[in-house]
Amino acid sequence: MATTFSITRTVEFAETDMAGIVHFTNFYRWMEVCEHEFLRSLGLSVDTHTVEGRVGWPRVKTSCRFKRPLRFEDEVTLTLTVKELRDRSIVYAFDFHKTEDGETILAAHGETIAACCLFDFKTQTLAPIPIPNEFLEKMTPSEIS
Amino acid sequence: MATTFSITRTVEFAETDMAGIVHFTNFYRWMEVCEHEFLRSLGLSVDTHTVEGRVGWPRVKTSCRFKRPLRFEDEVTLTLTVKELRDRSIVYAFDFHKTEDGETILAAHGETIAACCLFDFKTQTLAPIPIPNEFLEKMTPSEIS
Amino acid sequence: MATTFSITRTVEFAETDMAGIVHFTNFYRWMEVCEHEFLRSLGLSVDTHTVEGRVGWPRVKTSCRFKRPLRFEDEVTLTLTVKELRDRSIVYAFDFHKTEDGETILAAHGETIAACCLFDFKTQTLAPIPIPNEFLEKMTPSEIS
Amino acid sequence: MATTFSITRTVEFAETDMAGIVHFTNFYRWMEVCEHEFLRSLGLSVDTHTVEGRVGWPRVKTSCRFKRPLRFEDEVTLTLTVKELRDRSIVYAFDFHKTEDGETILAAHGETIAACCLFDFKTQTLAPIPIPNEFLEKMTPSEIS
Repeated sequence: MATTFSITRTVEFAETDMAGIVHFTNFYRWMEVCEHEFLRSLGLSVDTHTVEGRVGWPRVKTSCRFKRPLRFEDEVTLTLTVKELRDRSIVYAFDFHKTEDGETILAAHGETIAACCLFDFKTQTLAPIPIPNEFLEKMTPSEIS
Repeated sequence: MATTFSITRTVEFAETDMAGIVHFTNFYRWMEVCEHEFLRSLGLSVDTHTVEGRVGWPRVKTSCRFKRPLRFEDEVTLTLTVKELRDRSIVYAFDFHKTEDGETILAAHGETIAACCLFDFKTQTLAPIPIPNEFLEKMTPSEIS
Repeated sequence: MATTFSITRTVEFAETDMAGIVHFTNFYRWMEVCEHEFLRSLGLSVDTHTVEGRVGWPRVKTSCRFKRPLRFEDEVTLTLTVKELRDRSIVYAFDFHKTEDGETILAAHGETIAACCLFDFKTQTLAPIPIPNEFLEKMTPSEIS
Repeated sequence: MATTFSITRTVEFAETDMAGIVHFTNFYRWMEVCEHEFLRSLGLSVDTHTVEGRVGWPRVKTSCRFKRPLRFEDEVTLTLTVKELRDRSIVYAFDFHKTEDGETILAAHGETIAACCLFDFKTQTLAPIPIPNEFLEKMTPSEIS
């Protein structure tokens, strides 16, 4: 069992396209929002400042499988699962559920691999670093169970 | 060998985020733009009207692997390859290249599976249909070679 | 005194740009979200279906004055005021406030003129129409006071 | 007569909303793109680095009046005019034109006031500064005429 976390969002007008459904890029934006709210719920942030520089989490790979369209004003529950804790990256999985005719439906399933990186202000470069302990400590427990 | 097609874009300010690099969702938006320009280059459109209704190409699955960040005003070449023509869907692959210190670098590689669907105005629903001949005819030749 | 309504949002990562602040286009997106939530709070929707067709509210004019930048994870309160009820349009004003060093600061002030329009499916055109009574009834009371 | 500059863009799918037209926020994004391309056409950039810090042009005020909707695959010409050169800011005006039934139509008119600011890395603050000479020299001539 892994750490899970959920948020609920209502589809906004600007998120739809001329096909009358949510434009697929917004699924990715929502996944990132959910990841950041998850970190905040643990007392962490996706943007932390350390003595060595600024720690961030650029995406290494993302993917999404779209099963059902989402429409304007749909209420969607997005559930994050910490799928894997690697040395320098975290694999998150996301499920998008909505209710249709009283039934809960899986609308999409996505994954994100976020790498832990240190941003060096002098060289303006990003370098992968081991995940800081404060992140590991807060995620590991539920990972083991 | 598959059909290929390329476009070149300059990174816009609004496409960057506070990390100073292109926000990852824009890679997906660019892939879609490239796909649509590819269709137009063949005399086709992603939005065609037939007697039965409106034919569109919703995404079934998309993914992207990010290798190098893109920055404001970077000139990026995006190359589409028709990877697979299935009965009711097309698999496209995309390579993002930029030039750094005189060298051409692969910045990202993405994939899109787009399903051919008929939008029924009466029922407001999308149903998968076989890819119309006018699409197959224009893509098959280079696929075979 | 006019009808007012407030929402609170936390700045998302994707809403920032390379200057480290919220890209200005998002202020406009937020104004629209606030307008739609305001309508929902009155039991209305920005997208209603009538016998004659679909009633929508395209923008006639929008503007925004930016006073203070918003940053990632800032908590922002957006307050809508119904400034004017015209025959065929509504003028909304929006104030963006955030708290800085214990003080509440006006970060931006915007305005939207939204026209009431009927979308004719046959001709695929938008035509301005008088604001439906169900909208007027729910907004007028506080307008008068 | 003022300095003018034009770009042409084709409406992208992701820029449309469920009303089947370009979402209004994209008009603002396009104005900014046009402004940046204008600066590049003069050998300037919206993001320049000086000894004192980084010079940028945050928006002080923007507005747009929408006259005709833009649709997917519409070809739109966006014309920038330098309306006013102030001590610390530039007022740009923008006209959006498209061709409909052989006629050129004004689809929208917008304005942007961009302030010249120095970004201080130490204090992480933006301070308004006089417009650098290299900008004034390249814009003034056509302003006077």
